[in-house]
Amino acid sequence: MNKAFKGYRCTVCQTFYTPQRDLMACPSCGGILEIEYDYDLLKETIDIDYFKNHPDRSMFRYLPLISVHEPVHKNMLKVGWTPLYRSINLKDQLGLKELHIKDEGLNPSGSLKDRASAIAVIKAKEGKHDVISCSSTGNAASSLAAQAARAGLKTVIFVPKRAPVGKVNQLMVYGARVIRVDGDYKDAYDLSKRAIETYGWYNRNAAINPHLVEGKKTVAYEIIEQLGFHPTDWVAVSVGDGCTLAGIYKGFYDFKKLNLIDRIPRLLAVQSEGCAPLYEAARLQKPPRPTEEDTLADSIAVGIPRNPIKALSAVIESKGQWITVTDEDILKAMRRLGETEGIFGEPAATATLAGIGKALEQGIIKPDETVTYVMTGNGLKDPKNAAKAVDEPVLLKPNFNELDKYLKDKGDIPDV
Amino acid sequence: MNKAFKGYRCTVCQTFYTPQRDLMACPSCGGILEIEYDYDLLKETIDIDYFKNHPDRSMFRYLPLISVHEPVHKNMLKVGWTPLYRSINLKDQLGLKELHIKDEGLNPSGSLKDRASAIAVIKAKEGKHDVISCSSTGNAASSLAAQAARAGLKTVIFVPKRAPVGKVNQLMVYGARVIRVDGDYKDAYDLSKRAIETYGWYNRNAAINPHLVEGKKTVAYEIIEQLGFHPTDWVAVSVGDGCTLAGIYKGFYDFKKLNLIDRIPRLLAVQSEGCAPLYEAARLQKPPRPTEEDTLADSIAVGIPRNPIKALSAVIESKGQWITVTDEDILKAMRRLGETEGIFGEPAATATLAGIGKALEQGIIKPDETVTYVMTGNGLKDPKNAAKAVDEPVLLKPNFNELDKYLKDKGDIPDV
Repeated sequence: MNKAFKGYRCTVCQTFYTPQRDLMACPSCGGILEIEYDYDLLKETIDIDYFKNHPDRSMFRYLPLISVHEPVHKNMLKVGWTPLYRSINLKDQLGLKELHIKDEGLNPSGSLKDRASAIAVIKAKEGKHDVISCSSTGNAASSLAAQAARAGLKTVIFVPKRAPVGKVNQLMVYGARVIRVDGDYKDAYDLSKRAIETYGWYNRNAAINPHLVEGKKTVAYEIIEQLGFHPTDWVAVSVGDGCTLAGIYKGFYDFKKLNLIDRIPRLLAVQSEGCAPLYEAARLQKPPRPTEEDTLADSIAVGIPRNPIKALSAVIESKGQWITVTDEDILKAMRRLGETEGIFGEPAATATLAGIGKALEQGIIKPDETVTYVMTGNGLKDPKNAAKAVDEPVLLKPNFNELDKYLKDKGDIPDV
Repeated sequence: MNKAFKGYRCTVCQTFYTPQRDLMACPSCGGILEIEYDYDLLKETIDIDYFKNHPDRSMFRYLPLISVHEPVHKNMLKVGWTPLYRSINLKDQLGLKELHIKDEGLNPSGSLKDRASAIAVIKAKEGKHDVISCSSTGNAASSLAAQAARAGLKTVIFVPKRAPVGKVNQLMVYGARVIRVDGDYKDAYDLSKRAIETYGWYNRNAAINPHLVEGKKTVAYEIIEQLGFHPTDWVAVSVGDGCTLAGIYKGFYDFKKLNLIDRIPRLLAVQSEGCAPLYEAARLQKPPRPTEEDTLADSIAVGIPRNPIKALSAVIESKGQWITVTDEDILKAMRRLGETEGIFGEPAATATLAGIGKALEQGIIKPDETVTYVMTGNGLKDPKNAAKAVDEPVLLKPNFNELDKYLKDKGDIPDV
């Protein structure tokens, strides 16, 4: 029993609820719930010394700060404590004082979403569910399918027709029941909602399930710890549904409330030009309007973001900024990240890097500021778009003279 | 300067050489060299206490046991200290007392080969090289390209025509110069050899480069540490070139020499039926003969293994066993691993699981024995074969009644 988990507060009508089984949206108004903690109680045990030499090198080192009761984490896939790299080459190329890259592609199923799914599986077990379900463009689904398989739970996953084949195959290997919905993300979401209500499955849909943000926030905790409790001026991340952005903000918020940091970094929220309802909402200072999902960055192609309130206020509260990038920027950034740092990111993840570059060009981020780049997903997940980012490799006969000529043409060896 | 690195001994003619720049094969007979250490010197500092609370959670915690001099590891991609999972579901399904799974797919570029490439990059820097080259079916190449990009070195990679597109794209994203050779692995290898000799590039070809095994051995160190210095009865791994197997043996050998363990686990060496020259060599007690490369497990499809001596003797010395599995076994094992443990492995990695299953059936491994399964590569690397392992997902209209009927047909929900 986590005594610091006080309860839920509705982000719309502000009603407060004490901890209870399977509470999702606000029973009173349908608003999204936010988990609240007793920070004074947490302060009694959680300080910087608490983290020094903490033996658990995974997100579960933060268990006292997460709204779960059951200590079922011992037999789970290891999520979190991913590397935070200090950039060398990329920083110089961008003309930036300091850049850190958080490689979330090294989580068990290859994305930051593993953090949320780990919590979903724990909460499903707490609620004595045998089946967990969600709709997802891919990463939420595969992370759920992986963690649920390990935990012996069944998963039913709804994906839109356009979900990349690599992501769909991955979750089928994990044994998930996959329902490919002949429509877009909204169609997949609506069908999953109906099924979850009808069959009583545990709901892992982001935004609706208030505990998922509590998993995602651990990436912010780690960034703080890995930076020696001195976070960078900016933290950049790409945004689809808005839940990851909200989670990152929550992580910084918690640590500030616990006096572990003295300020919250400014959040650079990056959307794809082809699907930027939150960017537009921030610009127009109006609620987001449903938009087309016309971008190759499928993980952030969400025409109707489910978490606009938390996402928009995260940027406002942190004095951050919204920015958009094109598909071309995203593919260029994919090569740039690979070539300079040896990290392979999926389009939604390299969108963030493209956004950092653009923010520098536009003077939003200054060259003498410091930035943490949250690299949200592994490039191996989306080979089709990786192929678009690179040239076709040359095919040569096994003949040395042909090779020599080719390398000289390319300038790889001197033509003497 | 690593004083414990005594030198090289030829595995064929036994000639000994002191440490020197860029030494590859034996200058006297062309045989493969083995690195030798001064174990008495190492014993002065390396004991179980040395590892307790060692702050470095990567393969570089073992730096005193590796044949490198330059401490350039600070700015490298984090390789190693991958999770070792105690199996729950899979162990029961196999009918095995205890099974541990070492998930090497969570290394930076997604495979165990990252361990070897990290060492290659350090040695290339020691030798003041600007270009590193290798021929590879994929994982050696992408791991090299990633680590070299981070280190600011250039890579030229030779791949056989059949290399999976996902793997090729990955290394092009890392900025490697990729030469796709219109032929098989041997053709790619021969062309790379000629180019390396001609242009003076650093050679990362496994078997030829004696330091790569020293990187790979760290996976055995980690397994021992993660099992509390009590290794399992068996350690299973699939075999292509033979270098990974040789590396694992070397790791156990080192720790035994240092009195950190009292016995070396028996090695289960798994090859694919479609390309099993080492299995055949062991069976016939003769040197391996060139064979076809007819298996979907491309990472172990090596018709002319370059490291037969070390590989064959590793199995003999450990009182291990060779076994082969079919492509069908490999795909079944891919689903099995995913469904039971939430781990997605590439074919060469799930071949090992298939081999464990077959070894149990044949009584080679007994149900009351304990096994460590070295899961060598991430399934995301090879979406084409993952697609073969799973059924096509159903495509449904966004209509609840259609869904309900489908789920009842499948038995996912009761048909009442």
